[in-house]
Amino acid sequence: MTTDERPPVVELTEEEAWKYVEKTFHGRLAFSVGNQPDIFPINYYAHDGVLLFRTAPGTKLAGVTINSHVAFETDGILSDEAWSVIIKGTCRELDHSAEIEEAEKLPLKPWVRTPKYRYVELTPTSISGRFFNLGPEPDPDEL
Amino acid sequence: MTTDERPPVVELTEEEAWKYVEKTFHGRLAFSVGNQPDIFPINYYAHDGVLLFRTAPGTKLAGVTINSHVAFETDGILSDEAWSVIIKGTCRELDHSAEIEEAEKLPLKPWVRTPKYRYVELTPTSISGRFFNLGPEPDPDEL
Repeated sequence: MTTDERPPVVELTEEEAWKYVEKTFHGRLAFSVGNQPDIFPINYYAHDGVLLFRTAPGTKLAGVTINSHVAFETDGILSDEAWSVIIKGTCRELDHSAEIEEAEKLPLKPWVRTPKYRYVELTPTSISGRFFNLGPEPDPDEL
Repeated sequence: MTTDERPPVVELTEEEAWKYVEKTFHGRLAFSVGNQPDIFPINYYAHDGVLLFRTAPGTKLAGVTINSHVAFETDGILSDEAWSVIIKGTCRELDHSAEIEEAEKLPLKPWVRTPKYRYVELTPTSISGRFFNLGPEPDPDEL
């Protein structure tokens, strides 16, 4: 019998999951073009219920423009626990000068010294998260 | 003028990218069902040019069975540098008892105490990676 009585997986509430997203600044954006999946790492800033990220014209921006439905994942891993949050939602590029000016006031900077002047906003339609108590696989005889 | 002369982004060769993948055990799998993207965190083991992961029957296994084309991302972030590798490829579930027995000898264990007895193998069709020297955004006047 195991001495580890922690549940291996705990479903997070939407509020709990969003708190993890707000405290994190790096995730991955997946989208689909012609039923083929693609994925990119992004750094983002979460505020007021949306995620904002910056990009330059290219595959990533083209992908979310062609198919605005995206899946996003962010996670964190420690030695004995981990969490992961998955957001489904839609993306749109900010195109009004007023909203771009507002976005420029946010603490969202590219991580590398390349210019990325386009802003994309991800509005969640669903958010789910799980917290993992890491541990060994169960003995099949105990199940 | 900036004093940081490191290139902000360095494209990795396939060999360099694969070395990062082999040294890492956690990534995210994206796939597309009905042109809608989905994404899951996975822990994996890379060996002999393929990635192996374990799963239980459910959305993840159903997704890669319905559309075997997947995109995979893994990354690592330090204070002043980061890397990310993206693999495109196809998935198949191991179904021969001989190959399942071989897979069971590999150091691939679920991270949580839930049973995951199905093995899925991801065979890359492309691999690309980037190394990032993290730093402040460039001054537009310097571009």
